[in-house]
Amino acid sequence: MNGSDVSILLQALPYIRHHARATFVIKCGGEIARDPEALEHLATDVALCSHIGIRLVLVHGGGPQATELSRKLGREPEIIQGRRVTDDVSLEVTKMVFAGQINIDMLGALRRQGLRAVGLSGVDAGIVDAVRRPETDVEDPVTGETRRVDFGHVGDIRAVDTRLLCKLLEEGYLPVVSSLGGDDEGHIYNINADTVAARIAIEMKADKLIVLTNAPGLLEDPADPASRVSHVSARRCDELLRSGTIQGGMVPKIRTLVEAVRGGVARAHILDGKAPHSLLVELFTKEGTGTMVTTRDEEKRYLDE
Amino acid sequence: MNGSDVSILLQALPYIRHHARATFVIKCGGEIARDPEALEHLATDVALCSHIGIRLVLVHGGGPQATELSRKLGREPEIIQGRRVTDDVSLEVTKMVFAGQINIDMLGALRRQGLRAVGLSGVDAGIVDAVRRPETDVEDPVTGETRRVDFGHVGDIRAVDTRLLCKLLEEGYLPVVSSLGGDDEGHIYNINADTVAARIAIEMKADKLIVLTNAPGLLEDPADPASRVSHVSARRCDELLRSGTIQGGMVPKIRTLVEAVRGGVARAHILDGKAPHSLLVELFTKEGTGTMVTTRDEEKRYLDE
Amino acid sequence: MNGSDVSILLQALPYIRHHARATFVIKCGGEIARDPEALEHLATDVALCSHIGIRLVLVHGGGPQATELSRKLGREPEIIQGRRVTDDVSLEVTKMVFAGQINIDMLGALRRQGLRAVGLSGVDAGIVDAVRRPETDVEDPVTGETRRVDFGHVGDIRAVDTRLLCKLLEEGYLPVVSSLGGDDEGHIYNINADTVAARIAIEMKADKLIVLTNAPGLLEDPADPASRVSHVSARRCDELLRSGTIQGGMVPKIRTLVEAVRGGVARAHILDGKAPHSLLVELFTKEGTGTMVTTRDEEKRYLDE
Amino acid sequence: MNGSDVSILLQALPYIRHHARATFVIKCGGEIARDPEALEHLATDVALCSHIGIRLVLVHGGGPQATELSRKLGREPEIIQGRRVTDDVSLEVTKMVFAGQINIDMLGALRRQGLRAVGLSGVDAGIVDAVRRPETDVEDPVTGETRRVDFGHVGDIRAVDTRLLCKLLEEGYLPVVSSLGGDDEGHIYNINADTVAARIAIEMKADKLIVLTNAPGLLEDPADPASRVSHVSARRCDELLRSGTIQGGMVPKIRTLVEAVRGGVARAHILDGKAPHSLLVELFTKEGTGTMVTTRDEEKRYLDE
Amino acid sequence: MNGSDVSILLQALPYIRHHARATFVIKCGGEIARDPEALEHLATDVALCSHIGIRLVLVHGGGPQATELSRKLGREPEIIQGRRVTDDVSLEVTKMVFAGQINIDMLGALRRQGLRAVGLSGVDAGIVDAVRRPETDVEDPVTGETRRVDFGHVGDIRAVDTRLLCKLLEEGYLPVVSSLGGDDEGHIYNINADTVAARIAIEMKADKLIVLTNAPGLLEDPADPASRVSHVSARRCDELLRSGTIQGGMVPKIRTLVEAVRGGVARAHILDGKAPHSLLVELFTKEGTGTMVTTRDEEKRYLDE
Amino acid sequence: MNGSDVSILLQALPYIRHHARATFVIKCGGEIARDPEALEHLATDVALCSHIGIRLVLVHGGGPQATELSRKLGREPEIIQGRRVTDDVSLEVTKMVFAGQINIDMLGALRRQGLRAVGLSGVDAGIVDAVRRPETDVEDPVTGETRRVDFGHVGDIRAVDTRLLCKLLEEGYLPVVSSLGGDDEGHIYNINADTVAARIAIEMKADKLIVLTNAPGLLEDPADPASRVSHVSARRCDELLRSGTIQGGMVPKIRTLVEAVRGGVARAHILDGKAPHSLLVELFTKEGTGTMVTTRDEEKRYLDE
Repeated sequence: MNGSDVSILLQALPYIRHHARATFVIKCGGEIARDPEALEHLATDVALCSHIGIRLVLVHGGGPQATELSRKLGREPEIIQGRRVTDDVSLEVTKMVFAGQINIDMLGALRRQGLRAVGLSGVDAGIVDAVRRPETDVEDPVTGETRRVDFGHVGDIRAVDTRLLCKLLEEGYLPVVSSLGGDDEGHIYNINADTVAARIAIEMKADKLIVLTNAPGLLEDPADPASRVSHVSARRCDELLRSGTIQGGMVPKIRTLVEAVRGGVARAHILDGKAPHSLLVELFTKEGTGTMVTTRDEEKRYLDE
Repeated sequence: MNGSDVSILLQALPYIRHHARATFVIKCGGEIARDPEALEHLATDVALCSHIGIRLVLVHGGGPQATELSRKLGREPEIIQGRRVTDDVSLEVTKMVFAGQINIDMLGALRRQGLRAVGLSGVDAGIVDAVRRPETDVEDPVTGETRRVDFGHVGDIRAVDTRLLCKLLEEGYLPVVSSLGGDDEGHIYNINADTVAARIAIEMKADKLIVLTNAPGLLEDPADPASRVSHVSARRCDELLRSGTIQGGMVPKIRTLVEAVRGGVARAHILDGKAPHSLLVELFTKEGTGTMVTTRDEEKRYLDE
Repeated sequence: MNGSDVSILLQALPYIRHHARATFVIKCGGEIARDPEALEHLATDVALCSHIGIRLVLVHGGGPQATELSRKLGREPEIIQGRRVTDDVSLEVTKMVFAGQINIDMLGALRRQGLRAVGLSGVDAGIVDAVRRPETDVEDPVTGETRRVDFGHVGDIRAVDTRLLCKLLEEGYLPVVSSLGGDDEGHIYNINADTVAARIAIEMKADKLIVLTNAPGLLEDPADPASRVSHVSARRCDELLRSGTIQGGMVPKIRTLVEAVRGGVARAHILDGKAPHSLLVELFTKEGTGTMVTTRDEEKRYLDE
Repeated sequence: MNGSDVSILLQALPYIRHHARATFVIKCGGEIARDPEALEHLATDVALCSHIGIRLVLVHGGGPQATELSRKLGREPEIIQGRRVTDDVSLEVTKMVFAGQINIDMLGALRRQGLRAVGLSGVDAGIVDAVRRPETDVEDPVTGETRRVDFGHVGDIRAVDTRLLCKLLEEGYLPVVSSLGGDDEGHIYNINADTVAARIAIEMKADKLIVLTNAPGLLEDPADPASRVSHVSARRCDELLRSGTIQGGMVPKIRTLVEAVRGGVARAHILDGKAPHSLLVELFTKEGTGTMVTTRDEEKRYLDE
Repeated sequence: MNGSDVSILLQALPYIRHHARATFVIKCGGEIARDPEALEHLATDVALCSHIGIRLVLVHGGGPQATELSRKLGREPEIIQGRRVTDDVSLEVTKMVFAGQINIDMLGALRRQGLRAVGLSGVDAGIVDAVRRPETDVEDPVTGETRRVDFGHVGDIRAVDTRLLCKLLEEGYLPVVSSLGGDDEGHIYNINADTVAARIAIEMKADKLIVLTNAPGLLEDPADPASRVSHVSARRCDELLRSGTIQGGMVPKIRTLVEAVRGGVARAHILDGKAPHSLLVELFTKEGTGTMVTTRDEEKRYLDE
Repeated sequence: MNGSDVSILLQALPYIRHHARATFVIKCGGEIARDPEALEHLATDVALCSHIGIRLVLVHGGGPQATELSRKLGREPEIIQGRRVTDDVSLEVTKMVFAGQINIDMLGALRRQGLRAVGLSGVDAGIVDAVRRPETDVEDPVTGETRRVDFGHVGDIRAVDTRLLCKLLEEGYLPVVSSLGGDDEGHIYNINADTVAARIAIEMKADKLIVLTNAPGLLEDPADPASRVSHVSARRCDELLRSGTIQGGMVPKIRTLVEAVRGGVARAHILDGKAPHSLLVELFTKEGTGTMVTTRDEEKRYLDE
């Protein structure tokens, strides 16, 4: 830095004060972890947040890498309605990719920034208590026929226990949680990472849930990247979901954000995780980036800021 | 249990008193984790130890599983002098197998016993601070020629930081550590699990280091399983190593145990991890199992017990 | 122990898990403390419970020994309806026998097991706040005549303060409380030990109240020791008391157990304290021993276990 | 109080400041506990000390009462060189009188003053770790003949563990310790109360050891009560002991005080416990009462005050 | 002190027990701080209270000294209805006199008594969050005309944050608070010290609010100092205020006391701060001094004592 | 901020990491506190430091304001060798200006930045234990004659007690200390603020002592502002002092910095407090500002950074 840059620092001060001692749960997808540059950007953003006193929990899955490893092992993964059918081989792949490859890569990137990160999964200390998803009727998008699907070792969350996470934050550690879950019988389940992040955020009464994805946010016109909605209420999301304006992979994402704010998380964001430093741009500029979902009450507070 | 079994319980009481509030570091190899029955035996043994107040840290590697995955991915692992040459692909395999597959399997087995286990690796919170192993001259056991070997992402331990482990034990958690390490640049290293266990045991001033392996202990006559030495001093180990009585894979194991007791660990054991409940037999019977290494001073204390 | 005994240990593991971190209040009568073998059995049972993480408070009286000392001092104790009329001399005897002789004997036996026991009475730190029992009309069981009795320094409990007990448990000590009480004027009272134990158990929300006595439990047919009722609900106890099925010394005991479970203690037991290791048999076997009283709700939970 | 008394209160302020947060170990003999008025005086003095922030540990024996009970039980106690030969019956008497009668009486008197006193003995929590006194050659004061005496259950102190006492003081409780001791085998010993008090005072680095007895202090001329020495150095005590100026029961008392100050207790006092409020007179007046023993260094500090 | 004075000390014991661990907020006016003898009397009284375990917060203003400094600086202060019109110069004077001169003088006097006093103002750590008093219509007492007055930097209390005060008390410090306040914009306000004391007392649920002033208390006949009312209920104060019996400077004082007891402070006192040791006379004598205001319920408790 | 400014923020990250959890003692002179803009700059700089986890203690004097108030009160202050002769009136002025005016102004400016500042002086909680400066022989710079000067209420530091400061930092408060001191007799002394800051920094083992003054630092040629020495060792300072290169007001400043680094403060700085944001420029740029004094060892560390 040079002397004149110092005034930039001071412009950040009101934002720093605003976020000090807040708790954020950040979910990042596998596509960030596999891109070294994006991962380093994320790690520096996280380091800055951590140094100004924000308490952070990172949550990640790793779909793309799991697909890749499956294929290397000669097995094409079966994905139905965006959820991976997790047979025995697939569960091994998921464990290895999530808790081994990606989690360790993230720890490495964070340690490079001087952070004391602790890699965990939902299996650790009973953080995610899950139950095997029951067989489900699924309509074939092509034939329109319905068939009964057993998703295998896919789990639904029964409860979340954040005591270990809170204790680690209190001691100055940064927890990084891969989206596996377990039960009292010792079974391991593949769990949706957005849902894990949302449930942890709700349980910890987090100030923000931030979902980093590879889309710029919610678009009014999916064909027009310039039509990004920067702020939307949970009620409006309901309407947009009902009317079909929100489509494809954005549907479950927005549902998860809405669930989070209704569960007590003040603000839930969806950002483009691969846009450079999108996390900091969201936190330190007025215009922000991506889309923020809030309840009506929080919306008023936001507009008053 | 029936009423008459109760008297057996009471015979355990002196051992329970003896071990109460002790700290044990237990290293178990990949061959245990891959055998569901052996893993369940270990988990029950660990559960019993934990319930009677022993503070436990588990450390594991996972060589056999790593070899297996490498082969599935079409690459024959190169192993020189018992150490895996760890190229880029091999490092990914190691991360996935150690921190993903085996660590999660162990957490599942421990949770089934009601234990609050926390899976970690040496990368977490800087537990293992490592440095890349320099290129080494290695003699070809067949040709007798010397060549220079780059072991790749194999690391040597520079320092061990057990603060997170101590905090977790204090809070009633059971840490399970896979033998990876890292450095401040964010590099990840494959580290020998016996060495990680020994260094953690030394740093924590553990009462016992217990290495579970697939041998019955140190044999006076390697050909005769009945020639097991149940107790040996560190000095006697030096002699046996010099004289070549100890051979093969037992050489580095015994060296590690000797290093541990000289570093301040009271007693270091090598047990057959696949013999049913060998851990409990060691802890709760006078004759024990496997081989115990101690310093001279501790030997006297042991003989007085 | 020998190697094969280890499997017995493991059969105890589910029970150990079940009882871990539970709080038990155990009342033992004078007849155990005066029998060195019974006392040693109790001490080993208590040691085992303590080592597996059960938090224990022992409560005792000492009627037989008090009677004996009274007679040695040339005074025949007057006992009306099972309660000792406590004149000045008798109070001195009670203090000396309860807080001096028996309490110290128990501390000695527990210390021999390596336990850090702390001897207290209800007078200490205001544990038992008592009030002198008012004069009571008592029917002479022989003549049927009613006369007014002043029980002297016999006290009824006004309040119980368990802060010191909780602090001692937290610090790893084992409190042993003799059944005396006091008031703010400094008066000392002789209090019924079963009642002290029950009130402490209620106040501490103990998981179990266990009354060790010299009877095998509640018998359906008092003449037939084989007619023991192993489990009974509080409501059924009411009926049995009303119908006169429960008789003699068992009446106040069962009333106290009922009062305890209605006050929030999950399970209340009456065991034969002189049957060898009856405490462990109750805790570590399915069939148990003695009689367990529960509320209806807890009964269901018990039957589901 | 009336308004003019307030100025008296203020005269106490410098003394109150001087003693604030100090730790005193006070030994009181059985002759005080048996005299209700003396006991109440002591309790009020202790209450005042406690309210102005002095941390107090009380230690007591109870020789006269033990003798009395022995006689009532038809056995004349044998006392050799001031130490009670403690056979089996005598040990029972000692336990009952010390830990039962006197300790409870003191708790009652202290509770009457609103203090949260906790009655203990040296057996509790291993406070006094003792060993049986070996047989000793004793010269018959009359015949001059030497004979070998087995003092029975009389113990010598091996170690003192004050952790429980410190914890209780920290929590605002007032420990009252009767002078019994124990060993790891569960044996109980009769220990000299002055010695217990001195050892506890040394171990706690107490500011004062105060021995309340029934003598006015050290007299230069034993026949002249007006010849009291108000202050004496430990070295001078050595001379007076050697020269025979100190005689009789005062010999072991003074030896104990000397041992205490040499062990690190700043000031050791001997006071007449039955002179009304002698404790307060010592603490709150310049002239004091009784005799104070100090080292040379402390003597200088005292003279400078 | 001499020996006979000790009995006076013991007469104080019931009062000492009564007040132990109580929390008092004491407001003292500038007229005490400027009188070295009165200040020393106050400091000794406070020292005694502190040593017997009373937790004290001192609050002060400093009107007379502020007037004096204003005049020295050539400006006659304007005081309307007992409140100082605080223009810019006057605010500087107030800051200097309250937080500089008087606060430091009080710290000096308290340190002389060995107390660890900490000087604060309502600006520190947001203790007093204030808002500028709006312009007010004020009737000219002489002409009867109403005019609109801007009191300048006079503040009204919006909220009181006593966390720092509680933390300091817990650590054994004695807070001395001057009656300034602030807001989030960094403005400083002159606040009425009686009000600051009352609000702090309410927020801390203090046992007593004691206002030291230069009047003997509430007089039934203002002309007759002997007509002091020693105890009055809040409801009776309402009547006396309505009927005009209470007049002049006593009106706001009594209103503040009434507000305090209605806010939950058990007892509120007004004492003559310059009568020697009036604080101790109030606390340690039955008759007390000054006037005590309580609610009806507390009045009953008081009469029962 | 706009998006592109975010990259500036990230340039600050290495500096932020470097300073995280460090302790700085910052001394600022009266000339900053009297200039509202300079004070606001300082407050924002301090806020930024505080938010990134630096633990700060501010120390201030206030000479210019004291001189001004003295003159307003009609008294010309006498200043000999840079030290104010502090007679009774002058002491009052000092107390009012330091602890009242300036301290409160700083609290206001810091509160405006959302900081929880706590105003103290060296009199509070015995932070500065001082002794009156003895009469000193002073050479008249004009006449060359020596005369004996009594500096009045000027104090020299005997000891510094930083326990309150540490406790406040631990609880998240920001202490602001004015340079007064006291003694056990309750006397108040005027103490040199640079010395107070240095002694506190030494006692707290601070990472930095930063003296904000109105000079750009140490100049090699006092006439040439461009000749600033940015870094100098303590030993070199000795030489420059001996050779007379350092002159005037810079002499005691440099001596104080040298004393600080020799007392264990890693780095001591002198900066121009009125240059905008000089504190941040020093902390967040490589070139820094002002002059840094270190020991030789620290110099090496600095050059290696």
